[in-house]
Amino acid sequence: MSGLQRVTLKPGDTIGILGGGQLGRMLALAAARLGLKCQVFSPDPDSPAFDVVQYATCAEYAEVEALELFANDVDVITYEFENIPSSVAAILASRRPVVPDPKILELTQDRLMEKDFVTRLGIPTAAYADVSSLQTLRDAVARIGLPAVIKTRRFGYDGKGQAIIREGCDLDAVWAELDTRAAILEAFVPFEREISVIAARGYDGQVVCYDVTENQHRNHILNVSRVPAAISEELAARACGIAETIANALGYVGVLAVELFVAPGPDGPVLLVNEVAPRVHNSGHWTLDGASVSQFEQHIRAVAGWPLAQPVRYGAVTMTNLIGDEIHDYAKWLSQPGATVHLYGKRNARPGRKMGHVTVVEPEKS
Amino acid sequence: MSGLQRVTLKPGDTIGILGGGQLGRMLALAAARLGLKCQVFSPDPDSPAFDVVQYATCAEYAEVEALELFANDVDVITYEFENIPSSVAAILASRRPVVPDPKILELTQDRLMEKDFVTRLGIPTAAYADVSSLQTLRDAVARIGLPAVIKTRRFGYDGKGQAIIREGCDLDAVWAELDTRAAILEAFVPFEREISVIAARGYDGQVVCYDVTENQHRNHILNVSRVPAAISEELAARACGIAETIANALGYVGVLAVELFVAPGPDGPVLLVNEVAPRVHNSGHWTLDGASVSQFEQHIRAVAGWPLAQPVRYGAVTMTNLIGDEIHDYAKWLSQPGATVHLYGKRNARPGRKMGHVTVVEPEKS
Repeated sequence: MSGLQRVTLKPGDTIGILGGGQLGRMLALAAARLGLKCQVFSPDPDSPAFDVVQYATCAEYAEVEALELFANDVDVITYEFENIPSSVAAILASRRPVVPDPKILELTQDRLMEKDFVTRLGIPTAAYADVSSLQTLRDAVARIGLPAVIKTRRFGYDGKGQAIIREGCDLDAVWAELDTRAAILEAFVPFEREISVIAARGYDGQVVCYDVTENQHRNHILNVSRVPAAISEELAARACGIAETIANALGYVGVLAVELFVAPGPDGPVLLVNEVAPRVHNSGHWTLDGASVSQFEQHIRAVAGWPLAQPVRYGAVTMTNLIGDEIHDYAKWLSQPGATVHLYGKRNARPGRKMGHVTVVEPEKS
Repeated sequence: MSGLQRVTLKPGDTIGILGGGQLGRMLALAAARLGLKCQVFSPDPDSPAFDVVQYATCAEYAEVEALELFANDVDVITYEFENIPSSVAAILASRRPVVPDPKILELTQDRLMEKDFVTRLGIPTAAYADVSSLQTLRDAVARIGLPAVIKTRRFGYDGKGQAIIREGCDLDAVWAELDTRAAILEAFVPFEREISVIAARGYDGQVVCYDVTENQHRNHILNVSRVPAAISEELAARACGIAETIANALGYVGVLAVELFVAPGPDGPVLLVNEVAPRVHNSGHWTLDGASVSQFEQHIRAVAGWPLAQPVRYGAVTMTNLIGDEIHDYAKWLSQPGATVHLYGKRNARPGRKMGHVTVVEPEKS
């Protein structure tokens, strides 16, 4: 799908990062450890990533001149979030390589296109249907059954832009509430567990996966990740195979995350792809402390055209997000033996906002 | 010795760092992970630490106004190197807390004062003598014997400002070459190994030591550190006890390193203190990857008035410095499974210059 120009950076070169949140911040910190500089582009003057780079561009994504100047200052451009307008990507890509290829964003920004793409690769997902009107919603419910989940096709995250439809729900009200003409209905999966694979792919097509992570959500937001996931080696290998197939089909360069459900099947557990995130991912934060090379560094290596790492895991790892008010417990976490605390430098602890995380690495039970 | 004003920072507060080398850079990266900001003061426009902070002051240490403006911008001040002029410390300390107390620098900047201080604590060192003239050098050689090492009392590091004196050496030539009136002669220690203790002390007097590190030098520059050191638990405990005694006697706040020789004695190995470094230390770089909390974070916690960590070590750790031209092997190191590569972002790979380091963590043999 992608025909990316190969980049090979030298130490001291500069990576441009679109987006100034905690992912951009941790990407910049990882680049710094490798002797690479970063320049961050973000419209928010309070961007956490601005704190850790010498040069930043604070401008709206609509400011063409700012985008052009930013591109001129850097050697390659990457991004920390997937909702980058394609017009922005086009302006930047005309001046500097943008990695991963922004064409991939057009696909992963749309839940329906993404599901169609995964399905065409022969990889199972929950049953789903295109919904563009109240009538198509009724038809989809009739075909897929209830309970089911309706989601906007674009711009949803952390549970925003979605609703569960149960028996007896008023479909008119659900559809009116969602307020869109582009949605997708997905069968509700009675999953045993949620897992994710963090995979990296280089320009040369090499794919390296981290050990499969098991994730627990709370109010649709990731709460705890544990690695290794409590699944068989065979199932873990299948999950990594799926991530590799997707990364190869996309011609991906960088780190991507594939979220999957483990659901009961007639012949043992089955894997269903839930979502593909074309970026570093919250469920990979454990790699910062629990592995010899983090997902952030792995992404930087891929984008820089440097060798991907074969990361070694240091033990059984638990990563806990600090969400909203939980940040105020930071002193308690600082005192816990073996805990590594990450605070993102965000000013306001709004409900649901990811403010930091804590990792604990313990000797692995064999 | 020290009567420091206690500091308690909040996330988002700013730490001023004097010095912009790799130690300042890694301190700033550690502070960022805790949601703290840093401002770096350094006269060198190419300072590696400038790359990882939003605000920096590039000025000479003699520029009083720059020092004052810098102090006004930050909440507390610390430093990455011990050769800070006392006049600079005084200007800063009149505006903001400087931690560790700069009075400690006056002692550790002078090899003779440092040795006298350690000796007064009842802690053994190699035999030494004050040397201020050719005649006192002759007297010292007669008392201590040869071989011995002559060192300038101040401003020596990485083997600079020192020479070995062997039988038959021309003392006139040695003394002329050293070109000083303030030196110290130290007995040459036939050591079995060199070790170091990285210790942290908080405002409340709590001291936390990392596991003892074993160090190999090459051309007087640290080449490889390994942890745990191949010494008995009892000897390791004694080494930590020495570091704790020194930290307490100094009223120290922050991370300090104590370098020791393990030498053969009539009743088993003995420990001799070689040097005290009032700062984070190269032999503690392994903690970045090999422990739940690094020496850099531990120093930031201490300076910030936050709880010291009880760090957990992830395995047997080897840290190798990349010195001078060795930096050009970075791609080889990037490809080694389990290796974590740190490049300091320095432009010129001059001979003897510390350009980066590599850590490997392996399961511990029990």
